[in-house]
Formats: sequence, C-alpha cells, structure tokens
Amino acid sequence: MAKELKDLTKRSVDYSRWYNELVVKADLAEQSDVRGCMVIKPYGYAIWETLQHELDLRFKKTGVKNAYFPLLIPKSYLSREAEHVEGFAKECAVVTHYRLKTNEEHTGVVVDPAARLEEELIIRPTSETIIWNTYKNWIHSWRDLPVLCNQWCNVMRWEMRTRLFLRTSEFLWQEGHTAHATREEAEERAKLMLDVYADFARDILAIPVVRGVKSETERFAGALDTYTIEAMMQDGKALQSGTSHFLGQNFGRAFDVKFVNKENKEEYAWATSWGVSTRLMGALIMTHSDDNGLVLPPHVAPLQVVIVPIFKGPEIEMFDTVLGALAERLEARGVRVKYDNADNKRPGFKFADYELKGVPVRVVVGGRDLENGTCEVMRRDTLEKETLPFEGIEDHIVALLEEMQTAIYNKAKERLDANIFECNDYEEFKERVKDGGFFLCPWDGTAETEAQIKADTQATIRCVPYGVSQDNLGVDMVSGKPAVARVVIARSY
Amino acid sequence: MAKELKDLTKRSVDYSRWYNELVVKADLAEQSDVRGCMVIKPYGYAIWETLQHELDLRFKKTGVKNAYFPLLIPKSYLSREAEHVEGFAKECAVVTHYRLKTNEEHTGVVVDPAARLEEELIIRPTSETIIWNTYKNWIHSWRDLPVLCNQWCNVMRWEMRTRLFLRTSEFLWQEGHTAHATREEAEERAKLMLDVYADFARDILAIPVVRGVKSETERFAGALDTYTIEAMMQDGKALQSGTSHFLGQNFGRAFDVKFVNKENKEEYAWATSWGVSTRLMGALIMTHSDDNGLVLPPHVAPLQVVIVPIFKGPEIEMFDTVLGALAERLEARGVRVKYDNADNKRPGFKFADYELKGVPVRVVVGGRDLENGTCEVMRRDTLEKETLPFEGIEDHIVALLEEMQTAIYNKAKERLDANIFECNDYEEFKERVKDGGFFLCPWDGTAETEAQIKADTQATIRCVPYGVSQDNLGVDMVSGKPAVARVVIARSY
Repeated sequence: MAKELKDLTKRSVDYSRWYNELVVKADLAEQSDVRGCMVIKPYGYAIWETLQHELDLRFKKTGVKNAYFPLLIPKSYLSREAEHVEGFAKECAVVTHYRLKTNEEHTGVVVDPAARLEEELIIRPTSETIIWNTYKNWIHSWRDLPVLCNQWCNVMRWEMRTRLFLRTSEFLWQEGHTAHATREEAEERAKLMLDVYADFARDILAIPVVRGVKSETERFAGALDTYTIEAMMQDGKALQSGTSHFLGQNFGRAFDVKFVNKENKEEYAWATSWGVSTRLMGALIMTHSDDNGLVLPPHVAPLQVVIVPIFKGPEIEMFDTVLGALAERLEARGVRVKYDNADNKRPGFKFADYELKGVPVRVVVGGRDLENGTCEVMRRDTLEKETLPFEGIEDHIVALLEEMQTAIYNKAKERLDANIFECNDYEEFKERVKDGGFFLCPWDGTAETEAQIKADTQATIRCVPYGVSQDNLGVDMVSGKPAVARVVIARSY
Repeated sequence: MAKELKDLTKRSVDYSRWYNELVVKADLAEQSDVRGCMVIKPYGYAIWETLQHELDLRFKKTGVKNAYFPLLIPKSYLSREAEHVEGFAKECAVVTHYRLKTNEEHTGVVVDPAARLEEELIIRPTSETIIWNTYKNWIHSWRDLPVLCNQWCNVMRWEMRTRLFLRTSEFLWQEGHTAHATREEAEERAKLMLDVYADFARDILAIPVVRGVKSETERFAGALDTYTIEAMMQDGKALQSGTSHFLGQNFGRAFDVKFVNKENKEEYAWATSWGVSTRLMGALIMTHSDDNGLVLPPHVAPLQVVIVPIFKGPEIEMFDTVLGALAERLEARGVRVKYDNADNKRPGFKFADYELKGVPVRVVVGGRDLENGTCEVMRRDTLEKETLPFEGIEDHIVALLEEMQTAIYNKAKERLDANIFECNDYEEFKERVKDGGFFLCPWDGTAETEAQIKADTQATIRCVPYGVSQDNLGVDMVSGKPAVARVVIARSY
C-alpha cells in the first residue's frame, strides 16, 4: 500500500483533518509560501478544467459571453455603492506603489518611495464596480440590452484563517455580470443562473443541493436578493456552493448606467451577478470521498479509466498490444483513459495511488486473464471487483461509468434527504445541530433571532428553501413570535 | 455604410492610428479607467478563447499539464536570481497593505496604516521565482522529472506607454515552466515549444514567422538562451510573438532545486520557460486586416460564416426555414455560423459590420435568389462575390474556408519573403530600414554595435535566424570587425 494512503486520517477520527490531508496527498493543491494563497497542482487543476469547461458550455447556451476586466480597481470605486463597500473594502490587497529599486547595500530591492500611486488600487475581491463603470459606456438604449458577460479570473480577499479550496486569500472563480432593461428580466436571469448551477452540480459533480434565497443578513453586499445552492458535506455541515444575486438598480445608480427605454424615458439598468469558485473543489471532495481517498464522479474525473497490466518482463509486448488497443477503443468512445504499463512501480502501488486519486474504473489484466480472455474491473465508489470477459469490455465500461455517476449522486442525495429535519423546538435544535444536518425551522424574520442562533450554536440561516411549504409556519422557535418563513439552518463551512 | 467603418483611418494614412481605431471599432478591446489596463470585450475575448484552446491542445500533446500558482510574489524572491531582478523588479505593482478602513469623515475608505505587510508582495510580472520555489518541494529524484507545467493567467508590468494588446500593464498569457534532469533535455524542450508556437502561428493565425535565437542583450532576464518567433507587420516592423527560454540551472540554483540523478549524485534541475500573450491578438490584427476592418483567418474566427437574408416583412418565414436549415447543416459540419434575420438593422449596416469584424464568409439571399435557387457568397479576404447555386452550398463554403485560410497565410508569407533583405552596407541599411523590412546583416557579436544600430535607427537585432546560412559572414557592417553571425535587424513593436 502506498505510504500516502496508509497515512490518511479516517473521516470518523477527524473529518477536518481527513479533508486537509486528502487534498495534499491526492496531489490536488498545497499551501504556497505566500500567506493564504494556494498552488493548484496539475491533478487538481485538471478537475477544475473539466468543471470550467462544463460550466462554460452551460453559460454560453443561455447567451452569456466571456470577457475580461482589469485586476485592479481604484479604491474610490468601492465606496460608490454604500453596502458594497461595507462588505468588500475591509480585507483586501492594496497596491500603493509601482516600482522597486535596488537598496543602498545592493543586496536586494526596496519599494521606491517616489513611485507612490496617487490613488491606491485594490486587487479585485469581486468586480461589480469596475464592470459597471465599464458598462456605463456600453449601455445607452434598450437596444444595447441585455449585456450578458462572464469572466473567469482570480480574485483576492484577505482571509485570516485559510483552508485549501474552501477559504483562500486568492481563489479562481467565474463572475457573471448582466445588465437588463427591466426588473423582471434581471430577476429571471438571477434565478436562471442559480438553476444552471444546481443542474451542473447534479449532472457533473453529482452533488445534490438545496436551492433557496438568503436572508438579509447573509445577502451579498449590494444585492436585493441572493439566491444560493447549499450542499451538505458528509459531516452534515452546509457548504454554500454558488450564489446568484439580483442587484436591482444599485450598481446602475452608483455608476450612472442609464438607458433610454422603449417608452423613450431614461432609466437605470437592472443588474445581476453570479459566481462559483474553486470552493466547488472542496464541495466535490468532501461530498463523495472516503477513507481510501478521492471518489470522483466519472463526469468530472480527469482520468475515468486506468488499465493496469500485471506482467513479468518480456510478456509486456503482448499486454501492450492487447491493452493498448482497448485503451484506443475506449478513447474512441470519448472515455478519458490511461494504459499504465510503467515498470518502475509495483501493481500494488499503482492500485493504491489510483484509489487515492479517485479514478472511477480500474481494469486489471494478468497473464491468466490473457489466456482466459478475462479481466478484472473495479469500480472506485463501492470498491467492488468483477471478473468479466475481455471481449466487448468497452461496452461494459462505458455503461458502468454512467451507472456510477448516477449511483454516486443517489448516495449523496439519500444522505441529504436523510439529514434534513423539521424542528420547531429550540432546545431540541441546539442539541441536535451539533451532529450536523439541515434543520427546517420557523423564523420570525429578524436579524436578532439569527444572531442569537449563531451565538448559541454557530449555526446560521442558510436560506429560505425552494419547494418547502411556507404554510402554517407557527412561531419562531427562538423568539416565540409569529414566523414569516421556514428556513434551513445549519452549521457551515 | 456603418458609421464605425466610414471613420476608420486608412493604413496608408496612418498605420498606427488605423490599428488603434480598429481594435476599438471592431469591439475587440478598450482602455479601462485603470491606467494601462484594458478591457477585453466579448468579441475580442472570443478570438482569445479560440487561440487558447488551440494552443492548449498543442501543449498537452507534448505532455504539458496546466496548474495554477499564486498571483503575489514575496519581494525578496525577485532578488534570488541576479539577472532576473534587474529585468523584472523595476516596474511592478507592489502590495503593501491588506486592509482599508472608513475615513474619519465617513465619506470613503483609506488604507489602514496598521495593516502594513511585513514583506511587500509583488503582482507577478512572470512566475519563475514563485514556481521554482514550489518545485523545490516537488523534485527530489530523477524519477520526479521532467515536470512540465503551464499556467494561463494574468500578469502585470507597470508600463508607462501602453497600446491595446501590444503593450498593457496587465495582460493575459500562458507561461510554461519545465524542469529537467539534463541540459540536453531542457534545451530540446525550449526549442520544441518554439516550434509549437511557430506551427500554431502558421496553422491557426496564418502568420508566417522567422524563428531564431536572441542576442545576449535581448535575452530574457535569467536565461542562457532565448528563442523567438518574429512576425512582420504590414508596415514592415517586427513583432516578437512568442519566446521560449533555456534557463540552464539558474533558477534551480537560486531556489535550491536539487535532485539525485541516475548516478546517485546531487544536481540542480535544468529549466525552461516559454510564453505567448494577448500580444498575439495585436499580431493577428496587424498582419491581415485592411482598410475595411478585420480580416480573420477562418481557423481563429469566432464566427466563420454569416447568413443574411434580404426580405420584406412577411417573407421572413420562408427565409427562416430555408436559411435556418443551411445554418444547421453548416453547424453539423463544425462551422461556426450565424443566421442573422434581425429586422431592426438594414442589410447594408449588417454587411459593413460583419466586414469590420472580419467574418470570413458572408452568404446573402434575396427574394430573387430564393426563386432561382441561388445565393451570393462573399469572402472577406479578397471581398470577391460570387453567385452560386444554393443546393450543396455548404460543401462550397467548407472548402472555401480552408482555401481562405491558406490564401491568407500565403499572402502574409509572400509579403514576409518579399521584405527580407540581405544588407552588408550600413549607409544603405540606415536609409532602407526606415521603410520597414527584416534586414539580414553580418554582426560582430558585440553589444556596442547593437547599441549603435539602435541609437542610429531605432532598429534592433531581432534574432540569429534559423535556416539562414552562417557561412562567409564577412565583416560587421557597423564596426568593420569580423562578423560572428548573420542576424535579422528590424524596427519593432
């Protein structure tokens, strides 16, 4: 067994440590020497690329186009939208100078005090301000609308406590920013993008989510409404996996983006923004993986099938012919496959490594198999092995990959469903929330109650969920006042 | 005729202004309010995406994998490699603080002096330092080599005079960074990537280039050899379009990246780095475009074919059926096509706009065509129109796109070939270089001569070109001393 795997902490022992170790051992990412900034390693980045590709296709199908806006934002822009500045101007990286010079001792470089910027620049924590400042020049008439832009980029928020993928100072994401002629159209777009996220999470990441709308406290700074998808990790905690914001005319007003509407009247443009980030990598890892390592749904696995021969020296040529041909047949079917005939690693090492890395299907062929026309197929999610006829095995594998995608989703869905609880009693809630899960509770709509729950239990209101009855709400379990909504409350990442 | 087009300055009047206007009028990019930083608009970004996709495929075929490294680099890292710091530590964006706070008047935000970083961070101008600092932990034995990483990202160099795509403070690029066990392997990789760039420029961008190696003066800061591809713009100036560096053991030594080789001895790893940037967009635009706007080679055009009906009111349904079906047939053949039946723009406006945007093929169908079973096909490169049978037109279009790709390349290649001159006389050179062109001249190998040429003519040594005889060099045209190489000299962007 590979050393890396042997050392992996079990989830039952310490879920949090298991995650931290797994990210590093599976070669997904590591901390850099720059505080809070991560290095995304090739294997982790390959997953991110699949994810990007799939999301990008879905965005484009709804008419969105990619563009690119500046990394740096003038400090004063942040102050233009009153709530936005409160939310984002606090912890951010500030560029104050544009030149270094050799120090007097000629031993290194120092900041050149003469090269101080007139106005400091902020590394974007999110780009509403710089983008709406640009839209001002693009939008004049209703004919210019809608504007549907997205950008894939890096952003930076100075975080004090960081965890790989889940919370890092620099992270990668996409941010969509749309401008519309009417309130209705903007609201529809905000909801549409949440659905795109939820469908993507289900179909590609095999992650079931709860859709809903955030409470005022948890809203994006500057939004009128924030829609969210909340996933449940194996420890029962919530992980906010994507958000879509209806921004009203706040940014239109702040950046003076006016257009002449069909009635020939001037009006501020209506806005949305929506984003998912490398945080999704954390959700993916924590939702499916096990004590043996990663479990990757086939649709997102950079490598879906690995073929490993068990051979002695000169036999290899025969294996290469037969198994190389299988790899080609699978590739022709669109399967991401690798034939691993490296002779400097023992099969056992390879097995453990591919398990750790979550490769969905492993095909092993030994000398006996070659004689008998068989092979051993193992699926990573259940670790079940089957010996099967080699002939036509590619049909089986293609079908198995789809079967696994569904099975992995169903397993997560069952866990989610089994851990959503109705709860109307605060004492009961306080006791049970420690063990994780999503709690459906009546809420009086006040920030005070929200704060109380958080102080008592660390849990927060995740959202007012879609598809949950909002009738017969009864009273808030904390305040005893009439409830205005049934909300999902959970501890979260 | 669309207003934008009518106003486009002619190349013969002012080539430089023509370029600046075209970039903006064709909706490719614009200046942002942040000094030197551009906004890449959706149409420009779509070209960049095609380009990225094609390059990425080619990188991966050579075994390269994508990864991501931090945006910010500790100031001290730059000083680790002596030449590198000279080249890159001068004009760069410096992060000194990590927090803003509300000002005393509560009217805006100011930098919080308490949140000063212990060590300043630099926004990456290039990532050799941070990447080699990371490789230190990845590389221990020859078995860990080669490491072949690439990243697609933004970088920042504080430029005083900027031009869209050609020279901007922030730009997008890819940077490949490889580590090898032997000098030979690293040198081979550096040359291989230059070939990848040159083949890509030829096959996708339809840009012929001169390959060669840079003089010491023009080398990348920290490199032992810099290989380059130099393209010739329509004004005869050179545009350096991609570089690949053999870095020797400089970064291995600076960041202490040692490995145990097959002979069980410790050795520093050998390095290469190579990159192309959004500058390629400038090369693409300036190589092919004309006084009517962009000319895009079909392989890189986001939209390859546009179908425009000329109709009166109710006729539109008939057009939609027939031309919608054509668009579908083309799409099925892998053609990027748009059927533009918008009724709020006149056909003349559409024609001018698609010309300006460089859509390679335009198909126009009027009422008479519909009766006669014909259509008008225009190719953007020559502006030639042909009336052709509608039936089977998709075969013609698919073939035409390939024909145009070749024709556009050939035209550029003929111009390049016709403007490379042998020149051994400095007076003649000084006179002729004003009109542009690449001059093949004998050079004595000294930086003094190089500086003299630059001072006299603004021209620089672009490279020692591949495939040019280095026999019978004679004497340097400036110094009269024995020449050591025949080099390409040109004015450049």
